[in-house]
Amino acid sequence: MVNKNPFSDRVLTVQMSGIRKFFQKAKPDSINLGIGQPDFPTPEHIKNAGIKAIEDNLTGYTFNSGVPELREAISGKFRRENGLDYTPDQIIVTAGAGEALHIAMETLVNPGDVVLYPDPGFVSYKECAVLAGGRPRGIALDENFHIDVESCKEQMDGARVLVLNSPGNPTGAVESEETIKAVSQYAEDKGVTIISDEVYEHFIYEKKHYSAANYSDDVMTVNAASKTFSMTGWRLGFIGGPENYIEQCLKVHQYCQTCATSISQYAAIAAYNGSTDCVEKMRREYAQRRNIMYEGLKRLGFEFSKPEGAFYMFVPMEKKMFEDIIDAGVVVIPGDAFGENATDYARFSYAASREDISEALIRIENKIKVR
Amino acid sequence: MVNKNPFSDRVLTVQMSGIRKFFQKAKPDSINLGIGQPDFPTPEHIKNAGIKAIEDNLTGYTFNSGVPELREAISGKFRRENGLDYTPDQIIVTAGAGEALHIAMETLVNPGDVVLYPDPGFVSYKECAVLAGGRPRGIALDENFHIDVESCKEQMDGARVLVLNSPGNPTGAVESEETIKAVSQYAEDKGVTIISDEVYEHFIYEKKHYSAANYSDDVMTVNAASKTFSMTGWRLGFIGGPENYIEQCLKVHQYCQTCATSISQYAAIAAYNGSTDCVEKMRREYAQRRNIMYEGLKRLGFEFSKPEGAFYMFVPMEKKMFEDIIDAGVVVIPGDAFGENATDYARFSYAASREDISEALIRIENKIKVR
Repeated sequence: MVNKNPFSDRVLTVQMSGIRKFFQKAKPDSINLGIGQPDFPTPEHIKNAGIKAIEDNLTGYTFNSGVPELREAISGKFRRENGLDYTPDQIIVTAGAGEALHIAMETLVNPGDVVLYPDPGFVSYKECAVLAGGRPRGIALDENFHIDVESCKEQMDGARVLVLNSPGNPTGAVESEETIKAVSQYAEDKGVTIISDEVYEHFIYEKKHYSAANYSDDVMTVNAASKTFSMTGWRLGFIGGPENYIEQCLKVHQYCQTCATSISQYAAIAAYNGSTDCVEKMRREYAQRRNIMYEGLKRLGFEFSKPEGAFYMFVPMEKKMFEDIIDAGVVVIPGDAFGENATDYARFSYAASREDISEALIRIENKIKVR
Repeated sequence: MVNKNPFSDRVLTVQMSGIRKFFQKAKPDSINLGIGQPDFPTPEHIKNAGIKAIEDNLTGYTFNSGVPELREAISGKFRRENGLDYTPDQIIVTAGAGEALHIAMETLVNPGDVVLYPDPGFVSYKECAVLAGGRPRGIALDENFHIDVESCKEQMDGARVLVLNSPGNPTGAVESEETIKAVSQYAEDKGVTIISDEVYEHFIYEKKHYSAANYSDDVMTVNAASKTFSMTGWRLGFIGGPENYIEQCLKVHQYCQTCATSISQYAAIAAYNGSTDCVEKMRREYAQRRNIMYEGLKRLGFEFSKPEGAFYMFVPMEKKMFEDIIDAGVVVIPGDAFGENATDYARFSYAASREDISEALIRIENKIKVR
């Protein structure tokens, strides 16, 4: 006999992401514009550092918080790229940004606490908040998915945490300095801690990236090698924050992870101490693909603003059109996988080859023609 | 201004493991008998599979639950080695046994639920229970740290979860088939789910290993490549259980981990599909070291039963003796790092070379002589 009611309320409340389930329904030979990860291989110098770590038997536990040399390298990255002064002791190396979000929520959120997050947004914000017992609430976004600062301020009343994600998944929206600054400073005044997920920071095509921690001390900054260096499967991210915050986060990290994979940590040292030419090369390629996809979709009659960052387009469309696209053999993700306010949208990823993007556009065009 | 009371009650209640803090206090040139991981390199064929995964760019996300071929291999391991019929769909690949414990507790334990665990025991049992809001309670152990079955049955009244750990860390105690069977069956009747942590199963020197899931359906089995194949830094473990349990656990896993490191997963396929000669070789070496350490400590006057498994000796001693050993330049871990009932003990690890063990014994002997 297996226990009849064995599960915690929290786990019963958490929802599985529908994204993978969705892939399984795709027709064979479909072109996958659904996946949320770079399609480039990890750069050679980073792969070589990982291989060397294995050869050198650097395969035991590291410090819970991560290899000191890596935390030093990440501290340097924060200084150079973000203008942030996180010492190595203010950094925990995590299993990707995903674990970083989890430990931050577990550390900051008590049952019943309100957690604000962009809706539509990355699925983990809401569900990590729920896992921690929090009450997730979508923040007001304008028609281009930018934060409506005045509405957002109102929502902060009594909230515990606000998640920022610029550039945003699935929207590609990049927030201005004015918005990041206004939201961060107001949050600090109100005792609302910001968790700033900046994993797409390098993939911005016209605007600039601004880190929330430049405008408030009450911020935890989440980032990862996953998107920047095309290292999703290595599971390597990090979180930076005030020393006493990191001290508490480390307890959760210790028990949910022990330490990030040692091999991935040594590879990441090469990534963060090495040249960022490989990142700029990927950014330029994404920029080209963005143009191909945007022009193509516009030509087919889709009406939307050109997304500013990440590698996604969040395209408004009726349910019937969405189904036609799937039926044409192109996998995109339905908007409702990213929140309740985005049913009539689909997320297109341009982390796919130019050939695949062009072929997908042809398939969609042919399908539309016969409607 | 940083938030004055920013932390969740759960994180404030969780305690950091004192073990690493303790290492930092050790004298330079100390011999480390404190560390809880094998001192062997990962076997070559496993390292090569990890290197090949990097070379072949198998470095993207895998399924949340893990690479199908690995879950197939683990399913085969459960059948061959444990007599358990877990299908690949009943298995989640995790970041070591640590994450497996965390997701099991988050899935099973509601705030206020009683979680029984061996005390002294591995630090994570208590703290993962606390993180989930549970009330941890040590189960009654006899003078050799075996479960007192009758007392344990009484404690199960109203409890939600019971953690088994045979062979046990830090005690080295191996439970008999009678005990595992009696405890598991009684737990099933009482609706107490067992989490069976079997990471040391291969390191038993006279007795045999019995898996709790052979005697009850209400069991989650936790294991890892970490100890078995000397792969601690790869962060590769797994959890098997009833299908509906795994379905819920997968939600927590998805948000705290996404997936285990892909490279480690491909390495683990080589481990679980390959020969176990490398494991037997390590076991035989641990057996030799166990004899050297046990005879040495007995000769020095320490009185305790020979531990039956894992690679630890849990040695009774007064605080003064413990301090003398540290002062002699030998790092061992104080008993109170493993629970409240073990103040007058120290954990010696024999996952150290014979030379180090012999030298440590000489240092302790010299120290004792001059007392």
